[in-house]
Amino acid sequence: MSKLSGIPMEGLTNRKFWGIKSEIRVMGIDDGPFVAHTKGKALLVGTVFRGGQWLDGILRTYVDIDGTDATQKIIDMVNKSRHKGQLRVIMTDGVTFGGFNVIDIQEIFRQTGIPVIVVSRKMPDFSKVKKALKNLPDWQERWRMLRTAGKIHQVRSKPRAAPVCVQVAGINLADAEQIVKLTSTRSLVPEPLRVAHLIATGIILGESVGGV
Amino acid sequence: MSKLSGIPMEGLTNRKFWGIKSEIRVMGIDDGPFVAHTKGKALLVGTVFRGGQWLDGILRTYVDIDGTDATQKIIDMVNKSRHKGQLRVIMTDGVTFGGFNVIDIQEIFRQTGIPVIVVSRKMPDFSKVKKALKNLPDWQERWRMLRTAGKIHQVRSKPRAAPVCVQVAGINLADAEQIVKLTSTRSLVPEPLRVAHLIATGIILGESVGGV
Repeated sequence: MSKLSGIPMEGLTNRKFWGIKSEIRVMGIDDGPFVAHTKGKALLVGTVFRGGQWLDGILRTYVDIDGTDATQKIIDMVNKSRHKGQLRVIMTDGVTFGGFNVIDIQEIFRQTGIPVIVVSRKMPDFSKVKKALKNLPDWQERWRMLRTAGKIHQVRSKPRAAPVCVQVAGINLADAEQIVKLTSTRSLVPEPLRVAHLIATGIILGESVGGV
Repeated sequence: MSKLSGIPMEGLTNRKFWGIKSEIRVMGIDDGPFVAHTKGKALLVGTVFRGGQWLDGILRTYVDIDGTDATQKIIDMVNKSRHKGQLRVIMTDGVTFGGFNVIDIQEIFRQTGIPVIVVSRKMPDFSKVKKALKNLPDWQERWRMLRTAGKIHQVRSKPRAAPVCVQVAGINLADAEQIVKLTSTRSLVPEPLRVAHLIATGIILGESVGGV
């Protein structure tokens, strides 16, 4: 049994990356803006990139605001994609989408076979998150899933740049770090996530915000 | 009075491009799939690119299927955008969106001040289009708008590649040709249009189609 950041993996070991190609296929997932604490859905956009350069495809799904379906929706989106066979890594912007719809990155790795790298620009404030989760049904289960993302590592995508926070499932930190650096071609965040953010905000609001 | 492809321009002359920068800001516009001959709306996606390399922003609007509002919707989308000041060229995938919602590229140039390049992969079959238009209200007006796009020129985005068809408003053909070549970094069509197509199909269908 292998161990990932202290989480037992039930027989699944980390993917080995024997040299990371500059055109490695990476999916970046981010959500669009939504009205918090309502019953609606949030848009989830997945970009398929060749390294930090070319966009090969776009996927989308919807998740319940403050719901519990994001893990399964992402697994389905990835497993149904025609890009699945070429995909080597999934990157997500944080571990919650549509408010507090928490994703279980170990489960995503188990069900897709593709390692997951969580990238956050800010260090998550877990005491604040835990407090917020307690207002929701199944808060203990949400908290457990959030904790399976494991230890937070700081990675500098560029020398002298502010570090980003990284959590991993199914991939060694050194490989994850290399992929974050390789794909951060245009800004401090990997290009698959920067572009997923532009698309998700642009489609919902009419014009994208941020993205630099 | 200047003349563009034989269309009088009422005092507006072509934009001069004194040397075209590799990071020239170009908006690419394409529509998403829709159910033909229904009363609904079609998604229109605008990408803002730096040359053929980086995506700077995303815009979206909706147009009536087989309606007559596409020209005005594009003008509004461009004029309201925070990227407006930097935009040098608008590219469109053909001159009809959402079925037979025809755009008037001279009017878009007049109302935004930004030149328009229409790029089509196939030579349009005008006798077929005219026949189809005759089934719609205001078909003469649609036909007139379609004809303002003017003469169709063939441009090779890459040496030995199949040519694409280009129509222009507010820009000389030589400048348009240079911008088409400069932005066709990844395929035979300019990157702003390739990516607009991926996004519009991906958001509507759940996964993008084509785009190569």
